Amino acid sequence: MPYVNIQVTRENVSAPQKAELIAGVTELLQRVLGKDPALTHVVIDEIDPDNWGVGGLPALQYRQRGAR
Amino acid sequence: MPYVNIQVTRENVSAPQKAELIAGVTELLQRVLGKDPALTHVVIDEIDPDNWGVGGLPALQYRQRGAR
Amino acid sequence: MPYVNIQVTRENVSAPQKAELIAGVTELLQRVLGKDPALTHVVIDEIDPDNWGVGGLPALQYRQRGAR
Amino acid sequence: MPYVNIQVTRENVSAPQKAELIAGVTELLQRVLGKDPALTHVVIDEIDPDNWGVGGLPALQYRQRGAR
Amino acid sequence: MPYVNIQVTRENVSAPQKAELIAGVTELLQRVLGKDPALTHVVIDEIDPDNWGVGGLPALQYRQRGAR
Amino acid sequence: MPYVNIQVTRENVSAPQKAELIAGVTELLQRVLGKDPALTHVVIDEIDPDNWGVGGLPALQYRQRGAR
Repeated sequence: MPYVNIQVTRENVSAPQKAELIAGVTELLQRVLGKDPALTHVVIDEIDPDNWGVGGLPALQYRQRGAR
Repeated sequence: MPYVNIQVTRENVSAPQKAELIAGVTELLQRVLGKDPALTHVVIDEIDPDNWGVGGLPALQYRQRGAR
Repeated sequence: MPYVNIQVTRENVSAPQKAELIAGVTELLQRVLGKDPALTHVVIDEIDPDNWGVGGLPALQYRQRGAR
Repeated sequence: MPYVNIQVTRENVSAPQKAELIAGVTELLQRVLGKDPALTHVVIDEIDPDNWGVGGLPALQYRQRGAR
Repeated sequence: MPYVNIQVTRENVSAPQKAELIAGVTELLQRVLGKDPALTHVVIDEIDPDNWGVGGLPALQYRQRGAR
Repeated sequence: MPYVNIQVTRENVSAPQKAELIAGVTELLQRVLGKDPALTHVVIDEIDPDNWGVGGLPALQYRQRGAR
């Protein structure tokens, strides 16, 4: 019964990329733990960069200091 | 002090339906566990169907294969 | 495809009470939004009272001031 | 490695206010637990008031009864 | 800056299996979205089977009816 | 109505430290956004280090490579 929540910044993630994440995570849980894909739910949350902080700074400012 | 997070696909959930979910969950927690409604918070997240996967597929594709 | 996360303080919630919460939330989502129970997952998190704060205080101290 | 999720109602929270929340939470975790800011992620979720319930009511109705 | 939360039932998931999930999800996000592994956090929550419901039933009862 | 979830590795976080986190976050939300402490809930999740990954590795292995 896995449930997986993937949070990424909202930056033009395409529908095919989302489908690839869903397929990849589901396959991983089936391979490593034998989980039934029909019971595996994946939810992708796209977060506005203003709303994500790391290093004490909003994401875009943090990246300008050298991280990606 | 319950906190309840309800995640559903974003498909025209109306304000009255949301109010009914909020009332229903709050009543359930009061009845089963004696929780004070004033301390019970309910947050509904509506998820774009592209962002929800089950069975290794995005929700709409999964449904086309026979589930709802 | 609903996913519901219920967070309550860890205070002797029994297995039958958990089953009642699971049944009640699932029935609510079926009744209000027509959701298929086979696609409705409910996860109950029991939180140590030291780890839950409200009003700026840990739960037990907050309750001693008059709330439940 | 802290991860902090802040959920508030979506009511004109400005970018500087978000930056202040990110900075404040990160500083708090560094001060209290010695956590490295570079490993501290903060995600702010803004929730539509229709989607937030307390006291068994949607947030705006609850406030009209006297709370903020 | 991805954050991934994986929820599975608590059923003897070993440390090497957890490491494989962490590595697999991190690699997937790097491959599909180009995310920096150093900014990718993965948190695995193991949920007591009594606390997980699907189909309106606790997980173990649900499985006895034919699902895994 | 804020709800804040703080996730840290489970490494001897004391009750006074938890109380300090709860007080600090609640004060921050009151100061920055004018939120009522009585409606501010904080939940601290302590995560086993085996269950937290960063950089594609479990937390303890990642730290041995130079991060904290």
